[in-house]
Amino acid sequence: MASTLDEQAAVKFIGRVVEVNGEESEIEIMSEFCRGLFHLNHFSHLIVLYWLHLRDNENDRRTLRVIPMRHEGAPEMGVFGTRSPSRPNPIGLCVVELLKLENCALIVKGLDAQEGSPILDIKPYIPRADSIPEAEVPEWTLKGPAT
Amino acid sequence: MASTLDEQAAVKFIGRVVEVNGEESEIEIMSEFCRGLFHLNHFSHLIVLYWLHLRDNENDRRTLRVIPMRHEGAPEMGVFGTRSPSRPNPIGLCVVELLKLENCALIVKGLDAQEGSPILDIKPYIPRADSIPEAEVPEWTLKGPAT
Repeated sequence: MASTLDEQAAVKFIGRVVEVNGEESEIEIMSEFCRGLFHLNHFSHLIVLYWLHLRDNENDRRTLRVIPMRHEGAPEMGVFGTRSPSRPNPIGLCVVELLKLENCALIVKGLDAQEGSPILDIKPYIPRADSIPEAEVPEWTLKGPAT
Repeated sequence: MASTLDEQAAVKFIGRVVEVNGEESEIEIMSEFCRGLFHLNHFSHLIVLYWLHLRDNENDRRTLRVIPMRHEGAPEMGVFGTRSPSRPNPIGLCVVELLKLENCALIVKGLDAQEGSPILDIKPYIPRADSIPEAEVPEWTLKGPAT
């Protein structure tokens, strides 16, 4: 790989998970990015990219192999074949339902981020591009939590 | 938002799109991250997060409203309601089919990244978590490209 190319970049936090209440979470987007939410409520579901801030350390970011613990029978896997929060770039991804959009705040259902997690990006969920019901997975992914 | 909290973080590039050939793309993962690909081929589909390196500039990252151009009839939207490459964090997301995994290289189908795009993360596509065929979208998303 050419050494003249950049090997890292900066991500800005655009908001934060301010409250988690059972399946519902409140995301607050910083006022400077709030205009980017215009008409977001035209979509029923979103893809939320967030920063796994508790895993932003040398040790977690050096992790390349894991045994998914909450999934009975899972073998050792490369991290890129898991949704483990320990990975070179601690970016979490979750498909959520948008329940409410009001000013700079969103209430979403199903977000697996913790209170305090910084938000990196929000994208509309578009079934044409994002839904592959027939995608094949190993059996251990069918037990335990969805990710 | 508390001012004591970090407002940005660093992402490392773990690889690059080295070739795009029609619908097929080759991704090369840097040798230091290659162990993270172990057993990735147990999944038929992947979610690829990549860096929209051509949009990593002040102007594109300041963009908060767009009119999706390739979609007839699309209204002005907040960027978070679009898949526009101009956004505060130029992170691209694409669901792809894994055609081949060999050493540190992957051949995937359907990746919308350009040759040279840095890779940030690869995650397994898990229908239980990621597939919402019934998600509602505005009509303009049904015309033109999928994203």
